Amino acid sequence: MPASSPQPNAISIVEVGPRDGLQNERIRLSVDQKLAFIDGLVAAGLRDIEVGSFVHPKWIPQMADTATVVRRLTNVDGVRYWALVPNQRGLEAALEAGVQNVAVFVSSSETHNRKNINRSIDESLAEIDALAGAARTAGCGLRGYVSTVFGCPYEGAIDFERVLGIAERLFAAGCGQVSLGDTTGMGSPKQVRDSLTRALERFDAQKLALHLHDTRGLAVANALAALDVGFTTFDSSVGGMGGCPYAPGAAGNVGTEDIVNMLHAMGYATGVDLPKLLAVSRRLEADFGATLNSAYFRYAKSTGRPTP
Amino acid sequence: MPASSPQPNAISIVEVGPRDGLQNERIRLSVDQKLAFIDGLVAAGLRDIEVGSFVHPKWIPQMADTATVVRRLTNVDGVRYWALVPNQRGLEAALEAGVQNVAVFVSSSETHNRKNINRSIDESLAEIDALAGAARTAGCGLRGYVSTVFGCPYEGAIDFERVLGIAERLFAAGCGQVSLGDTTGMGSPKQVRDSLTRALERFDAQKLALHLHDTRGLAVANALAALDVGFTTFDSSVGGMGGCPYAPGAAGNVGTEDIVNMLHAMGYATGVDLPKLLAVSRRLEADFGATLNSAYFRYAKSTGRPTP
Repeated sequence: MPASSPQPNAISIVEVGPRDGLQNERIRLSVDQKLAFIDGLVAAGLRDIEVGSFVHPKWIPQMADTATVVRRLTNVDGVRYWALVPNQRGLEAALEAGVQNVAVFVSSSETHNRKNINRSIDESLAEIDALAGAARTAGCGLRGYVSTVFGCPYEGAIDFERVLGIAERLFAAGCGQVSLGDTTGMGSPKQVRDSLTRALERFDAQKLALHLHDTRGLAVANALAALDVGFTTFDSSVGGMGGCPYAPGAAGNVGTEDIVNMLHAMGYATGVDLPKLLAVSRRLEADFGATLNSAYFRYAKSTGRPTP
Repeated sequence: MPASSPQPNAISIVEVGPRDGLQNERIRLSVDQKLAFIDGLVAAGLRDIEVGSFVHPKWIPQMADTATVVRRLTNVDGVRYWALVPNQRGLEAALEAGVQNVAVFVSSSETHNRKNINRSIDESLAEIDALAGAARTAGCGLRGYVSTVFGCPYEGAIDFERVLGIAERLFAAGCGQVSLGDTTGMGSPKQVRDSLTRALERFDAQKLALHLHDTRGLAVANALAALDVGFTTFDSSVGGMGGCPYAPGAAGNVGTEDIVNMLHAMGYATGVDLPKLLAVSRRLEADFGATLNSAYFRYAKSTGRPTP
């Protein structure tokens, strides 16, 4: 649950690069590279970092070493490391590795949920209910994702009432925050405003986050739209990772640099040190040997500044 | 003067790719390539197209063939072709080539104006006064640009009151529309909203346009901010040209595809046929032999659609 008591004009960033970013990149980082990456994020001021997931390596080999990464994380006051778990077996592995903050996920599209995890939405929610009990018993923080909230590549339009109903179920299961995911970047600023206004009629801003992908180039504008209606927590990924650096144009999560730059330029505080964050992106780009997507990062590179 | 009588929810796009886009690209297109490009824009529904400039070829060799381009343009009902002129000599050359719509420019930063055209702002405005008289006599439409309105790379912050004063002078000189330029992409959505709200207290929306560059990745969000306060005309460049395709990360004008996609997704009408526009970008990319910047164009390419 990021941002337990935000000050005015404070916006919380949940960095999902080490998980949602890296899991969609062809290049696999070593455990040492991942740890250096995560340490850099902490040094740049990020306080909520999703460090990996406990899914079967057959499906996402990039995350096969998450347990090792978790075991070697440096504990830092005020920093929450999150791990994504798909089911109870994943939770057990996460707890065994010492995970203290767990994220669960379900899609608002039946087809997407089935393609993603081979279950109906109701089956996913039942699994999450059971899993959440065990996580709470273990003293874990719990965060939920709802996917495809502004549209599904298979089903098209998604009834936002269904999204809100699923969020309700995730809160009931014990999630402290629910992150609404525009999984394939289908939302428009108008849709974001209309939908999220409804979400905020139902839930407190602190209990909600927006998880944007930049597939069609609207992620930053959509973040602005969400900010306008009162959202205060955004998921993002350093460098805009999550597409594929070898397929020019494949855009991933909204870039942390891009959203942080916009927020700072508008007078919001994020706690993130942008030059230090750019240093993380630079190292990541060297690790990948490929160009990252974040527009602000590219700008900073082209000017040769500002990196510490 | 784009959008003489807009319907509700109609937004006007002024395509500046053949001028502001191409003049900043290292690769020079041939006259035939430029004409095919412009014809494609017309076929895609663009009605205001800046086709070139009459500046000395020593400064901008990419525009050296503008007179030839203008002479060979296809007249199409409802389409206005614009040419940029820096001074009276440029106007004479433009009129001789048959230009019917003329754009003039001045910076709101003394330093930038001097570096750009080696004159003070007052000298530029005096030149524009003289030039505008001749253009009116010749029956030309007249449009003015004010540069660096949200910040200057040399001077930093720009007093927006000065911007409004210069716009006033351009209207007095006979400009039907003044386009406010964020020349190096320094504006934030908050600044855009605050500044443009003031501009709209002084001038009608139809008399103003916003000319955004995506230098720091905020152009689309800034367009949204301008739309929110009532701007109805935007300059843009197909493919986001205007950076350099050989310097990854050098972002140019806001991409026409990006702004049109956002507008359409929000329910605005632009008169632009997006698939046909994407076909123009594809040909342009082939002409350049390099990747264009527009995020929506990259998305469309990655999906293999939608091009006619």
